Amino acid sequence: MLQHPPAEPGMREEEVDTPALVLDLDAFEHNLDTMAALLAPTGTRLRAHAKTHKSPVVALAQMRRGAVGQCVQKVAEAEALAWGGVPDILVSNEVIAPRKLARLAALSRIAKVAVCADDEAGVRAIEAAAEDAGIRMTVLVEIDCGAGRCGVDPGPPAVALAERIAASPHLIFGGLQSYHGSAQHRRNLEERHAAIAFAAEGTRRTVEQLRQRGLACAIVGGAGTGTFQLEAATGIWNEIQAGSYAFMDADYARNGEPPPFRHALFVLSQVMSAPRPGGAVLDAGHKAVAVDSGLPLVHGLAGVRYTGASDEHGTLAAEDPAALPRLGEKVRLVPGHCDPTVDRHDWYVGVRKGRVECLWPVAARGGMA
Amino acid sequence: MLQHPPAEPGMREEEVDTPALVLDLDAFEHNLDTMAALLAPTGTRLRAHAKTHKSPVVALAQMRRGAVGQCVQKVAEAEALAWGGVPDILVSNEVIAPRKLARLAALSRIAKVAVCADDEAGVRAIEAAAEDAGIRMTVLVEIDCGAGRCGVDPGPPAVALAERIAASPHLIFGGLQSYHGSAQHRRNLEERHAAIAFAAEGTRRTVEQLRQRGLACAIVGGAGTGTFQLEAATGIWNEIQAGSYAFMDADYARNGEPPPFRHALFVLSQVMSAPRPGGAVLDAGHKAVAVDSGLPLVHGLAGVRYTGASDEHGTLAAEDPAALPRLGEKVRLVPGHCDPTVDRHDWYVGVRKGRVECLWPVAARGGMA
Repeated sequence: MLQHPPAEPGMREEEVDTPALVLDLDAFEHNLDTMAALLAPTGTRLRAHAKTHKSPVVALAQMRRGAVGQCVQKVAEAEALAWGGVPDILVSNEVIAPRKLARLAALSRIAKVAVCADDEAGVRAIEAAAEDAGIRMTVLVEIDCGAGRCGVDPGPPAVALAERIAASPHLIFGGLQSYHGSAQHRRNLEERHAAIAFAAEGTRRTVEQLRQRGLACAIVGGAGTGTFQLEAATGIWNEIQAGSYAFMDADYARNGEPPPFRHALFVLSQVMSAPRPGGAVLDAGHKAVAVDSGLPLVHGLAGVRYTGASDEHGTLAAEDPAALPRLGEKVRLVPGHCDPTVDRHDWYVGVRKGRVECLWPVAARGGMA
Repeated sequence: MLQHPPAEPGMREEEVDTPALVLDLDAFEHNLDTMAALLAPTGTRLRAHAKTHKSPVVALAQMRRGAVGQCVQKVAEAEALAWGGVPDILVSNEVIAPRKLARLAALSRIAKVAVCADDEAGVRAIEAAAEDAGIRMTVLVEIDCGAGRCGVDPGPPAVALAERIAASPHLIFGGLQSYHGSAQHRRNLEERHAAIAFAAEGTRRTVEQLRQRGLACAIVGGAGTGTFQLEAATGIWNEIQAGSYAFMDADYARNGEPPPFRHALFVLSQVMSAPRPGGAVLDAGHKAVAVDSGLPLVHGLAGVRYTGASDEHGTLAAEDPAALPRLGEKVRLVPGHCDPTVDRHDWYVGVRKGRVECLWPVAARGGMA
């Protein structure tokens, strides 16, 4: 069930119902402009990742600044984007269930849709869905370029799978998905360099072997907010899949030489209990702000820390009790991890210079399948 | 936006779209019956906590077995229950924002509604909302019985706040909220005993001091799944607020002498990638199953462990690679923490003996405010 919007346009931010997902529109637009400016000289395209924002409104704002399309992880996300007018979507993940593939095939009638595979059984399932729908589906081979999660090994296993795709009557071989997820949050820039150099070697080798078999990679996609400048500099990847750059969370800010973006996404919260001096309790616990990558940061209140999250409560502490916000005060939290925090909420409250300017639904919130 | 239901009644469980929240109806009903049987001889009422289940269907199943009503933490949860036919709801938490209190006052026209306070400013805000709505609102005083989060101290501070409520023309003093949250998960039974003995002393003392001032406690509420048998045995609490007992998660199962309930709630997931021997990747990461209280357990597959959660992927490992499920296989996960896991999903898929029997919406999912 969609929840009440927590605000109305024109309200002051202090009037917004809490907890709420607040997007600082000036910082958000700065981040989009910064990414466009950084990628322009590299010739690398941006296909921003919608698993972060789950919103066609955000997607279209990215595309107005030059993004060629969007990535998603789930078919439900692809649907929310296509229904919202996004014309070009890559599911940067494996989909093997026939019910999901049938939905994806249906969607390809209203948007350009591609999907990944890392197993012959996956290729057969996609071929069957495309045949049933009477369409041709573009399929990328995912390679494991170092993260050790999904993806076939670079080189011959990837080439064999690509040939299988190319030989399938209802499939089009679309290129490589080569994303090094665990490299994004390595704290040291040299470690990120080493991880992407390793990923680049396997990716380059695979692209070359495919070329020798006559298979061109229309897309060589990968990279995230923590490493995209490294991938873009190699000339191997032609599409960057960063997502968090639009919002910039506390975990990315902990990287050494962090990515050059501003915190744009906040969970606005209220002190709803302060029974004793030296303590304050917020109405935002881990149902409102994700804690998988660390607790949120308290924004703009020097010396105040968010020290504990339970389901619906967050506790604050400060060396100087006078620094704590008082009962009823509202506090901006910077989420530890933006993607799952967005997925907890039904609405973005877009704020500019202290006033609510817009309300955007988190259209693919809860899109599991 | 409400997502597609992941199943249809009559389907086999293996056909359910993943990831999905699966409720084993036999185990669920066993848990409800067990709680009713345990509380009957104590004379203590059950007011089950809906922050766990967020569903009027679950609430009414609990009430058919004798629960007198429901607790909630948020006004949005109270609305979802009242609109779904639940007649008696306690917000076991402070509400201080005028917009929220106005919604709660409106709701009191269709259900019996009560709320907590731990500050005079909170009492004034509730009085103002009740006066504006032309109703009388029941207010409980929350005391801090040991957890150190919300609540005034037992004894004179609680009595002073109760007198303030009783003197407010549009309020009714309803009793005490005395919940020791941090005691629920203490692993050792003796530690739980000691925590509840401490809570009981402060609660008993406060009830007695209130009685001396002529203030009777219609409700003395508290207790959770980890300790309710201790509170019920004291004769001080007259309402038990357990919620997780209905589903029973992995974290409660880690308690020494764990509560006597069966795992009824699962996240059904599918192996969507298995590119290398010895590894398997599920389609359920921490957007589908909460990890704040530890990773989920793999149900019914001996030797297989869920070793890592990213946003949309879960990795499995096993000492014996042959024990791992294969690509396409479906796996039941026992969530580490049931409450936030339920809040990630739009639908319960009720299953009995391998067949989908019902689909229940998680009506208050995402109910933040």
